Amino acid sequence: MAYFDAASTEPLHPAAKAAFLSTLDEAWADPARGYYDGRRARMLLDAARETVASVLGTRSDEVSFTTSGTQAVQLGMLGVLAGRRRVGAHVVVGAVEHSCVLHTADTHTALSEQRGIAAEITRTRVDRSGRVDVSAFGAALRADTALACVQSANHEVGTVQPIAELVTLCQSAGVPLLVDAAQSVGRMSLPDGWSVLTASAHKWGGPAGVGLLVVRKGTRYVSPLPYDEREARRVPGFVNVPAIVAAAVALGAVGTESADEDRRLSGLIDRVRTRVRETVPDVEVVGDPVERLPHIVTFSCLYVDGEALLTELDRAGFAVSSGSSCTSSTLTPSHVLEAMGVLSQGNIRVSLPRGVAEAEVDRFLALLPGLVAKLRAVVAHEPAPSVARDPFVVDALGKRCPIPVIELAKRILDVADGDLVTVLSDDEASRLDVPAWCEMTGHEFVREEVRERGSAFVVRRRP
Amino acid sequence: MAYFDAASTEPLHPAAKAAFLSTLDEAWADPARGYYDGRRARMLLDAARETVASVLGTRSDEVSFTTSGTQAVQLGMLGVLAGRRRVGAHVVVGAVEHSCVLHTADTHTALSEQRGIAAEITRTRVDRSGRVDVSAFGAALRADTALACVQSANHEVGTVQPIAELVTLCQSAGVPLLVDAAQSVGRMSLPDGWSVLTASAHKWGGPAGVGLLVVRKGTRYVSPLPYDEREARRVPGFVNVPAIVAAAVALGAVGTESADEDRRLSGLIDRVRTRVRETVPDVEVVGDPVERLPHIVTFSCLYVDGEALLTELDRAGFAVSSGSSCTSSTLTPSHVLEAMGVLSQGNIRVSLPRGVAEAEVDRFLALLPGLVAKLRAVVAHEPAPSVARDPFVVDALGKRCPIPVIELAKRILDVADGDLVTVLSDDEASRLDVPAWCEMTGHEFVREEVRERGSAFVVRRRP
Repeated sequence: MAYFDAASTEPLHPAAKAAFLSTLDEAWADPARGYYDGRRARMLLDAARETVASVLGTRSDEVSFTTSGTQAVQLGMLGVLAGRRRVGAHVVVGAVEHSCVLHTADTHTALSEQRGIAAEITRTRVDRSGRVDVSAFGAALRADTALACVQSANHEVGTVQPIAELVTLCQSAGVPLLVDAAQSVGRMSLPDGWSVLTASAHKWGGPAGVGLLVVRKGTRYVSPLPYDEREARRVPGFVNVPAIVAAAVALGAVGTESADEDRRLSGLIDRVRTRVRETVPDVEVVGDPVERLPHIVTFSCLYVDGEALLTELDRAGFAVSSGSSCTSSTLTPSHVLEAMGVLSQGNIRVSLPRGVAEAEVDRFLALLPGLVAKLRAVVAHEPAPSVARDPFVVDALGKRCPIPVIELAKRILDVADGDLVTVLSDDEASRLDVPAWCEMTGHEFVREEVRERGSAFVVRRRP
Repeated sequence: MAYFDAASTEPLHPAAKAAFLSTLDEAWADPARGYYDGRRARMLLDAARETVASVLGTRSDEVSFTTSGTQAVQLGMLGVLAGRRRVGAHVVVGAVEHSCVLHTADTHTALSEQRGIAAEITRTRVDRSGRVDVSAFGAALRADTALACVQSANHEVGTVQPIAELVTLCQSAGVPLLVDAAQSVGRMSLPDGWSVLTASAHKWGGPAGVGLLVVRKGTRYVSPLPYDEREARRVPGFVNVPAIVAAAVALGAVGTESADEDRRLSGLIDRVRTRVRETVPDVEVVGDPVERLPHIVTFSCLYVDGEALLTELDRAGFAVSSGSSCTSSTLTPSHVLEAMGVLSQGNIRVSLPRGVAEAEVDRFLALLPGLVAKLRAVVAHEPAPSVARDPFVVDALGKRCPIPVIELAKRILDVADGDLVTVLSDDEASRLDVPAWCEMTGHEFVREEVRERGSAFVVRRRP
């Protein structure tokens, strides 16, 4: 199988696997114990911490190992918020953060409410490439802002965030900045000046079960969890030394290799960006083409069902992910694509693992146009929604993505330039995809009118 | 090294290691993904859940995998407490629970306080063997009791708790019972009727990084953590499939082997219990001799520094642990020994891993009396504390365990039967060890008087 979902999890680095195996034999004992086996585990744990600190450019006593990147985000956010309760309960986050950041912000709101305090979360806007708007971020920082959070780079579209500018803004405002560096650790270094960093080892080629929570000296932090003396009192539970050692070895290894391999992956991603645009009609390749991670690209194909495209690719032996609404358990499109205002239907994220074969990427590029055409032919031949009396109204109520947009695309051909077509849809994806379709096709998106059932999307035909 | 600290962590079972290695290669992908690699990981995860559920006698959808036993306890307690907020905030725990249970109860108190609610924690007493007092436990259950917690067996002394009786009490009171089964899963089955079970895979021969949180149907549970759809919405973060598969394989393997091996270990523990009493003078072997885990025994040696004994044993190649105050970062004795009211000085816990060589146990038993005698000779020759003017007062202020008790033992010889000797001590361990010494030696412990600095312990000489 051609595995193109490295942004979800990177396969275990061979050096990490070797280290894991030997550490399972040598350092399985509790590193808190004073006997020989315990001391040996402790020494390996300390060495792993030094490796990580050295790669990140921090002190080793600022590094705690968590059990996942998600846990690191939860603890980092709630710990700083608990430490800065006197300052306030306001939180600033980017609109395209990982869902665990947004969910933790929700939990902060709920916990504050239980304490009789009204917390406020400001999600700052991003541009069409997914880049956080620096001035909006700066304007959101207030005297009662307890924490600001931003990712180093986006996990769905690869766009790198302007961390240096955001650090400067947070420093002038006296607000600690948490950087969710899950997608970038092991691939690019960060400018200094952040207060908390979180990351996840299985994203850089380490094993599952290890995350990083780095809290710089001078950052007020109060653990949100019950007392436990391990990991600087930040992460409860038995310390998983073999996995941590493997994670550190992977980080050291990818750090050494990464410049060349990242250049190669970046070239392959450029090839995907270009070739998909050339060979697939009605496609939107999104994310910043230059200021991006080396290994990630996302594109959306008009008039295609994302779930069906995933299935066809799986049959053909490709593992990719999608931000389309039909691939989500909630039937809502990816909040990242939504915040960017880009098309979400027929969405595919390709994220290349280290060492991926160029030939696999080329096979994908050769196959994709045919698969997309096949799926478009299928939906084009599906029965049309019940014809509304009004020829200017497309009644797509009860129809799921991509049908409403397909019916709109058909109907627009039947009306004159300047005429209005109204699409009735109760599919959440239409909110995003009807305007995105207008943007792509040159028609004018006039407005959305919320109705009792769903919305009416009004579109003006342009030449 | 002879590793006798299995109650801290059991070495990885060979079958688990083999499963771990193959799953690292086969099932590293995200089990939430729909492509082939994801589906394969999902199938192995589901199979692991079935194995665990079948061993525990529960439904598989009641089993969530956590990242540690500590996390399982924290989530289990706080989740049920959040789910039963309307009932009340009172919690009943045994006095000898694992510290993570007691710390989580403290966190519940702090969180309740933030919400303006006075939570109450009742720690129910145990007898001198460490067994929870059933009638005290029953009497503690109230209309506003939201949760009761008890361990299946004690982690320091091995005593098995009367779970069946406690289940009955909790069921009549309508209070959910959380059983911390960290020490017993894979060794003994539990009576049915509990509401929540927690456990830790590395205690049964699985790898680090896996715990169990089992919540029976009908138990109200509200996750205390930010939303995450994984593991029945109970445990956030990327699911560590290889470690979980290895944990399930270990559980299956020890389940099959355990009856014979546990009998063998239990025989070796009986040998330790008997021989230590025969060969080491002034020793207290604690815990229930019969209703106990097969692999754990704890004993305390009068007039011996626990830290020094650990060090000597480590030099001789034995890895054991201790509940003596001098081995703890807080210089307080184990709360388990304290609740039992038994001696804590010169304390050693021997917990035998599966497959331990009988010869190692015999080497330990042959060596121990000499080591204890050597250490006693060292402390006996240390300079005595400054002589108080009063011959009936031992001034041991500023002296650490075991000095206050040693000085008391010397002085008692100089007074007549019926005379009172007062020991002044500001060492926390004296609270436990002076009365325990009286119990062991037949002298009468009269009272403790709290002073500005430390306490005065009054002892009457008996023939």
